[in-house]
This record gives sequence, C-alpha cells and structure tokens, in this order.
Amino acid sequence: MSEQRQRGEWLTGPVLVVGAGLLGTSVGLACRRSGLEVLLSDLAVEHVRTASGMGAGRALAEGDVPQLVVVAVPPDHLGAAVAAALEAHPEAVVTDVGSVKTGPWRAVADSPSCDRYVGGHPMAGSERSGPLAASASLFDGRPWAITPHRDSRPVAVEVVEDLVRLCGGVPVWLTPEEHDRAVARTSHVPHLLSVLAASRLAEGPENHLALSGQGVRDVTRVAAGDPRLYSQIVGANSAAVLDLLTEVRAQLDSVIAAVGAGDRAGLEDLLATGVAGTRVIPAKHGGPARPMRSVWVSVPDHPGELARLLADAVDSEVNVEDIRIDHDPGRPVGLVELVVEDSRAEHLLGSLESRGWETHR
Amino acid sequence: MSEQRQRGEWLTGPVLVVGAGLLGTSVGLACRRSGLEVLLSDLAVEHVRTASGMGAGRALAEGDVPQLVVVAVPPDHLGAAVAAALEAHPEAVVTDVGSVKTGPWRAVADSPSCDRYVGGHPMAGSERSGPLAASASLFDGRPWAITPHRDSRPVAVEVVEDLVRLCGGVPVWLTPEEHDRAVARTSHVPHLLSVLAASRLAEGPENHLALSGQGVRDVTRVAAGDPRLYSQIVGANSAAVLDLLTEVRAQLDSVIAAVGAGDRAGLEDLLATGVAGTRVIPAKHGGPARPMRSVWVSVPDHPGELARLLADAVDSEVNVEDIRIDHDPGRPVGLVELVVEDSRAEHLLGSLESRGWETHR
Repeated sequence: MSEQRQRGEWLTGPVLVVGAGLLGTSVGLACRRSGLEVLLSDLAVEHVRTASGMGAGRALAEGDVPQLVVVAVPPDHLGAAVAAALEAHPEAVVTDVGSVKTGPWRAVADSPSCDRYVGGHPMAGSERSGPLAASASLFDGRPWAITPHRDSRPVAVEVVEDLVRLCGGVPVWLTPEEHDRAVARTSHVPHLLSVLAASRLAEGPENHLALSGQGVRDVTRVAAGDPRLYSQIVGANSAAVLDLLTEVRAQLDSVIAAVGAGDRAGLEDLLATGVAGTRVIPAKHGGPARPMRSVWVSVPDHPGELARLLADAVDSEVNVEDIRIDHDPGRPVGLVELVVEDSRAEHLLGSLESRGWETHR
Repeated sequence: MSEQRQRGEWLTGPVLVVGAGLLGTSVGLACRRSGLEVLLSDLAVEHVRTASGMGAGRALAEGDVPQLVVVAVPPDHLGAAVAAALEAHPEAVVTDVGSVKTGPWRAVADSPSCDRYVGGHPMAGSERSGPLAASASLFDGRPWAITPHRDSRPVAVEVVEDLVRLCGGVPVWLTPEEHDRAVARTSHVPHLLSVLAASRLAEGPENHLALSGQGVRDVTRVAAGDPRLYSQIVGANSAAVLDLLTEVRAQLDSVIAAVGAGDRAGLEDLLATGVAGTRVIPAKHGGPARPMRSVWVSVPDHPGELARLLADAVDSEVNVEDIRIDHDPGRPVGLVELVVEDSRAEHLLGSLESRGWETHR
C-alpha cells in the first residue's frame, strides 16, 4: 500500500500540518511519500519531534509559506485553530480533518478570508492515538468527506481534493450541515449504542462474560474509544445526535413493549428494520463496480456557484462519486462534470434542472 | 484446525443429531472427523440428504440405538424436541444446542427421565444458516456452555463434556438460569442495540451512508441475523432481556440528558462505563481479559501469500486472536489486520519485518 500516489496539478506544497497526532502525522507521511514538502507544528514539542523522526516532515520555521494548512487538532479547539491558520497564513488554503463540520465553518464564516477554507473529514481512525500510531496508508480506500461552504473558492476545493486523493482517500462531497447529520447517523449514534451495550458488560459476573462471542466483541469494539475525545465529538454535534437518539428511544420503547407482551410478530418486524439497515451500508471501497454516468452542468464563474451546485446535488440525495471541473479562465462559464451511479443520473438531472441549472447529457 | 480431536472416554457413539441445520450438521461433521457413528434426522428430508452428502452422518433408521442425542432445532420447538428425544431413546443421554436453557429444562423437569438431559449452547453461529454453511471447525476455540440441572446424572454430564471437547469447544459451566442471564447480557441485548443502530441507517439518505466506516459496520453486523430466529431467541429469554433493557433505557435517558444539556463531564462519565465494559470481555479461548493490539500487514494479492503470512505469524510464536482482511479487488495489495496480545505485538512486528513483510503500526 506504500506506492506513491499520483500528485494532482493543484497541490504543490508546502503543506503545513497543525497537530501532529494520529491523523496529522498520517497526512504528513502520505504527503512526504508523494514528495511534497511538509511542515509540522504542535503545542506538544515532542509530538513534532516524533513525527519528524518518522519522516512526516520538519518543524515549521519562521518565514515558511505553506500553500495548504491541514488543521488536525481535537474537536474543542478546531474552530479557533482554523481561524488562527487563516490569519497566520494569508495566502494559504486551509482545511481540517475534524469529525464535525458546521462548528469550524461557523467559527470563520464571518471572516472575509473564509473563502480559503474548505472542511474535510477522513473516515479513518483507530482505537489508538498519537503520532506513533500514524501510517501513510491510514486513509487508503477510506471515504473522506470534503465539505465546501457557499463561499469556498473553487481553487481551494481543488487543492483539498488533491490532498484527499494523494492520501488515497475516496472523496465524498457534502455540505457542512449534511455532513454533520450524516456522521450522527453513521458514526456518533452507533458509537453511543455500542457504549450502552458495553456498559451492561461492566456489571456482569466474570463467568457470564466467558460466554462472550464474536457478536458482542463486534458490537462493543468502538466503545473502547477515548471518552474525552468522543464527548467532544458528540457534544459538537448535539442537535443532529439528539434528533436520532429521540428516534432510538422510541424504538427501544417499542422493543420493550413487544418483548414484555410476548408479541413475536411485532418483535420480528422491529428486527427486520435492522436487517434492512445493514443492507444499505455500501460495500467497502464502493463495493462491486456499479455502472457510472457523468452529468455535466454549466456553472457561472462567480464565487459560490460551485458550492451552490454541490449543495443542490447533495439535497438531491445522490452520491456524487467524482467531480471534475473544466475551467477555462477565458470564459465566463465553466463546465462541471458530476459522476454518479447510472441509476441515479436521471433523478439528479431532473432535480438540478428544477433548481435552474443548465445541464448537458 | 481440521485435525482429529482426541476422543474422550465417555462418548463412544452412535450420536443422533436431530435437526440438520448449520449447528447440527457441524456437530455431525466434527463427530465423524473423530470416527464416531452419526445418525441424522430432520423434518426436512432434503436437509438430511445434504448433510449426509457432506459427510456428516447417515439417516436415522429403525432400530438405531444412539448413546447421545443432540437436539438442534429452532428455539420454539426445543422443549418439545428434547422431551420427544428422552422418550424415543430411553437409554440415551440428551443434550441440545439451543440459545436459551431454562425453557427446554422446564419442558422436561417433571419427567423421571430428565436426569438424562444436560443442556448445552455453543457460542458459534453465522449470519448464514442451513447445512451447506456447516463446518467441522465451526466450534474450534469457541466457548460452549454446559448447563447441568440439579437432577442431571454425572455420566450424562461427562458424555456431553466429551462432545464439547471433541468439537473443539471450550466448556463454560453454568446453571440453566445463570446461562440465560449471561446470554441476555453478552448476546441478546447487544443484538437488540445493534438492531437499533442499523434501523436508523435504513432511513438515511444514500449520500449520507457513503460515510460509513468500519465502526458502524462492526456495530451493526449482527443485526443482519434472521429476524424470525432472533425473535424466538429473545422471546424465549424475555425476563432476563427485559431486566437489562430497563437498565439500557435508563442509561439512554442519561445520555440524552447529558447531550441535551451540553454536560461534557457527564457524557464523558457515561462513555467511560462503556470503556470499562470492553475491558472485561475475556480474550478469546478463555483466560483473563488481556489488552489486545492490532498489527497491520500489506499482503500482495497472490495465491498463497495470506497463508504464508499466517505461517510466519505462527512461527513467531504469537497467538493470533483474530484476523480481518481488508481487501480491495481494485488494488494489487490487501491490508491484513492481526489482533494479538499487546505484550506480543512488538515481537510479532519485528519478526514479520525480518521475514520481509511490510507492516504498519
């Protein structure tokens, strides 16, 4: 998995990584693998020393001018760190790898330099943390959300997409708000339910636990994650998490009622909704090759138009597998290619046309 | 793992398997592997034919006198099938492989022949079912509860223990009541919480689900199990399940309150009880819970490479507790995760590296 990735045309470096933990150091290693210059900074000097020693880059020095800043700090410090990066590096594109996306965006939305910020979130991690757990292949084949906001400059989006591909990630395009609703469903609420299952074990007699099989190990594995980190993550996404927990609670009440009443058919129906849920999880790495189709859209060359198109595609509930921007500086209109599953292409075209976009088949 | 197990001194056969599904056929295959005569019966004649064709035994015939009857029928029919086996085979020891243990015991407790019954429950299964999914090594290294009741004859207990060891299972001794409380905690309630997490996915937009990572896959895996079977299992253990679901509901309310109030410290405490729970799960193959660690290895996609890696790991004298293969058909190299005791991880990494493997920490 250590082959050098092809570098895109937009990201040329240097790349500054702020926060040399598991994710930041892994980004540094992946960028170095492709020959980019990487600068490192961290409040903990020993993290920079460790990451440097692993070959993830060198310590940031006075006078360094990064092209891209990747903010990889804990959730509670994310917004402030993104704002500080925009101010300290007035020419740089800034992204982050945090687990929630509306928070850091709101922290900079009122700043005129927010057009240089494009959020990101790689779906990769580990029960372990710190630079020693880092690996250049941590992101290989993993989804990596890219969350442009309405004011993101297209060139900033391109630079961040280059970073994602260079790290081996699979871009998933979402708005910051949709991203946070998505991770509440696919990550934060499953984590909390894993914790509820694991908590019951803590009170169990030892010989009862001897019956633990693969099932309970799988269900509870993520509950071993750092409570401090996850309380920050869940706390930063409380609205979306609460919406879903309310649904969970209602369904739990239904389960309790069905079990209590000996209502086998009702319980079977509830269990069947779980089966349906497991079937909609996409296969790893995109699963079996599905037929893809490109949809082209004319996009006026005004700030915000690309982000507006992305937001409209996201609202159409179509998963955009790839985006290519065919931008000719000499023309007032660019052509954007959206690659989607063939079976969803007509739906997307209709939806975009109804929102006023000029499409090409 | 297919080597012949040593036969104990008590179990000499013939063994009659009632119900030639996944578990029954696997028991038959394991007994045949050790040279015991195996008889098969099933309401579905084609199951007997399939299992016979796989080498799991021959169809039960008039005049056969089994030494041991293994009842492997769905939970709703378990009590009646155990009672019928005791009556039809007046000299035989009778056991079963059902997921709950007080039900079948109560079904025979008033019969004078109940002293020949000893319950059993192997912690092995699969999302698959039916004889074709069976394997002689299904039980290898898995806990297998043996649940003698107050009237069980010692010789009957010995015969059942021989069966468990011959199948490669690790005996866990519990009373029927303790068993049912144990599986409510280690299996049934985790299953229901997995269903609650999976059910939320069913309602999610497709592009949100693109962010699904390994965590949600793990949490929801068991929710794919057959709703009809699990509604029988949970229904047959309703009292113990309801006790725990009441605790789950109280803790869910606490989580909702903490998230709603932005109470980070309270949420962190709740998450910490989950961490504590994951720490009391015993390591596989019994023994006290030891800290585990994952080691990743890049494995070229050639036939034999995975087997060579396993052989090298075995030669390194490190016990591999679990293996997960993250294989992307589109790439020439796969990533294999080996889960080993934390104290042995560095030794394994060094050993594999010295044999030319590319590892990731």
